[in-house]
Amino acid sequence: MNANILVLPGDGIGPEVTAAAVSVLRAIAKRYGHDFHFEEKLIGGAAIDATGEPLPQATLDAARRADAVLLGAVGGPKWSDPKAKVRPEQGLLAIRKALGLYANLRPVTPHPATLGASPIKPHLLNGVDLMVVRELTGGIYFGDKTRDADTASDLCRYSAAEIERVVRRACTLARARRGKVTSVDKANVLETSRLWRETTERVVREEFPDIELEHQLVDSMAMHLLAKPREYDVIVTENMFGDILTDEASMLAGSLGLLPSASLGDDRVGIYEPIHGSAPDIAGKGIANPFATILSAAMLLRHSLGLEREATCIEQAVGKALDAGVLTADLAPAGRGVRTADATRAVLEQLEADC
Amino acid sequence: MNANILVLPGDGIGPEVTAAAVSVLRAIAKRYGHDFHFEEKLIGGAAIDATGEPLPQATLDAARRADAVLLGAVGGPKWSDPKAKVRPEQGLLAIRKALGLYANLRPVTPHPATLGASPIKPHLLNGVDLMVVRELTGGIYFGDKTRDADTASDLCRYSAAEIERVVRRACTLARARRGKVTSVDKANVLETSRLWRETTERVVREEFPDIELEHQLVDSMAMHLLAKPREYDVIVTENMFGDILTDEASMLAGSLGLLPSASLGDDRVGIYEPIHGSAPDIAGKGIANPFATILSAAMLLRHSLGLEREATCIEQAVGKALDAGVLTADLAPAGRGVRTADATRAVLEQLEADC
Ligand SMILES: CC(C)[C@H](C(=O)O)[C@@H](O)C(=O)O
Ligand SMILES: CC(C)[C@H](C(=O)O)[C@@H](O)C(=O)O
Repeated sequence: MNANILVLPGDGIGPEVTAAAVSVLRAIAKRYGHDFHFEEKLIGGAAIDATGEPLPQATLDAARRADAVLLGAVGGPKWSDPKAKVRPEQGLLAIRKALGLYANLRPVTPHPATLGASPIKPHLLNGVDLMVVRELTGGIYFGDKTRDADTASDLCRYSAAEIERVVRRACTLARARRGKVTSVDKANVLETSRLWRETTERVVREEFPDIELEHQLVDSMAMHLLAKPREYDVIVTENMFGDILTDEASMLAGSLGLLPSASLGDDRVGIYEPIHGSAPDIAGKGIANPFATILSAAMLLRHSLGLEREATCIEQAVGKALDAGVLTADLAPAGRGVRTADATRAVLEQLEADC
Repeated sequence: MNANILVLPGDGIGPEVTAAAVSVLRAIAKRYGHDFHFEEKLIGGAAIDATGEPLPQATLDAARRADAVLLGAVGGPKWSDPKAKVRPEQGLLAIRKALGLYANLRPVTPHPATLGASPIKPHLLNGVDLMVVRELTGGIYFGDKTRDADTASDLCRYSAAEIERVVRRACTLARARRGKVTSVDKANVLETSRLWRETTERVVREEFPDIELEHQLVDSMAMHLLAKPREYDVIVTENMFGDILTDEASMLAGSLGLLPSASLGDDRVGIYEPIHGSAPDIAGKGIANPFATILSAAMLLRHSLGLEREATCIEQAVGKALDAGVLTADLAPAGRGVRTADATRAVLEQLEADC
């Protein structure tokens, strides 16, 4: 197939990890006879430096033309002055919103080779297989904000329609998995959470009666996620809670460096990015873990291009590289750890051997 | 000394655990020659059933007259209909607000005897000693709310003055500890968080230059709390983030059943309550863990009555009971676990022996 893939390297380690993932996508294209065309544009701090804006119009236009977007990470101390008028993160929020990518899928599946890197006891991690679906274009991230010398405010707002569509997506994913959805809110305090809970109940009752639905308060969920992670299948929640819970859940997998994500809307185009940040402290050193971005490329093949076989092939190659002990510094015992290029090469070799 | 202590048992296991803590306070009074007068009032679901209101005026009046308030827990399925007009939790939020208790102190100190119950690997817990200070009367919990058929909103609002006073409290606590304060926000997205960060910087610079201040984004903090809990001393954060992070942090201690809290304002009166909920599933069975409420009573002696020696004495007695293997069902291997009364008696015996 032909596909146009927009690459947005962003800041910090973004360029290093997207380059690794692009090399894997090129290998897949060659192997399976696809024609992937890659275009690169600016976002985040890099875009601010070059154009004054975190999301230049040229980047957004290119994203609208693309079949899928592969993104690195944005942000860094250089652009972190709290009084700054433009911030790298605005570029990320704006492109998610502009493309209507309301469902952020964050799978968490601990791999045996990385149990050592997790702070969680290994026996709890056996068989953990979570899919967190985070609402991505609503809530307090996008509500009206005010600021004067002495006060500030952020409005958290949700409509039933915004909740319905992300809950549908979560239920559809659950049907192809274990059929269980855990909806997380703070319905004992927030109006938005009470609307969230009622709407979720209704969507499941009317459209997904086969799904087992459970509600959890966000504070309890922050505990249960650690105490009994095996009990969960699909977890669906609003934007801010999803941000916090997925970073927490990453600890089940041992490192943020292993976790991919897909941001999807109703169109074919999606944004695929690691859930880690730009890690300015290790940028440019060639030691970043490329696996999260490579696994994001696999999600890109699956969700935007419908190439399930190719996606699985990448996932298995990463799994085998981990099995073979290919661990970057975030996963290896202190002082050890392979470089980005070595980790990428290990995946390419597995692809060569198995696909 | 003479002291009036208001007891608000609340719902679920609340009556069981407050009764345990009161028996410990009576023992302390006898031992050290104090005269504690206990009064009991309604709050939460129990108050709704009796009066139609979650915080009856008589309860608030009694709290205003008291030197300190010992609270159990509120809530339960009976009052959880999302469409209900009054909810037990409103009673809790209203009394915190009415008494001006803006600083919620939640210490987390894992005990060697409970490492087995924690999902976290034991070597990470060695030496962990955290004090989370959660802002308790502002933010999205108390902002304007709207609701119609299709939309809902919650406003998160903070003033600099609200931030200053809780940061001062955190810094003052840190001075008597390891001198480090970690402030948690989401300054890359929220205006309230940017005000939080600027205000924190200023208070520390102008009033606590001896304090080592660090900022963390809430999503990163949800990870670091698990990966390197030893690195933190005092953590200060806004209401909602504090709710989530303290429940998460409770997993370091093995069980929510061990964690006390103190809610303080500028006056002497404070509310002391376990951070666990009303646990309706085990209510009335006599198996609830009373330690969190007993430890909350110790905080009451320390913070509202200035009885440091007595407070320490209770804390040591609980520690020794745990050392001796007195573990309730939440902490013991499945199928074992002592009853509430046994756990309480063990603490009373330690007090008898040591104080
Ligand atoms: C960079 C930031 C705005 C972003 C978010 O909070 O959504 C990031 O933390 C993420 O989770 O993708
Ligand atoms: C019961 C609820 C309103 C309360 C809160 O969120 O503050 C509880 O979770 C707590 O942490 O004390």
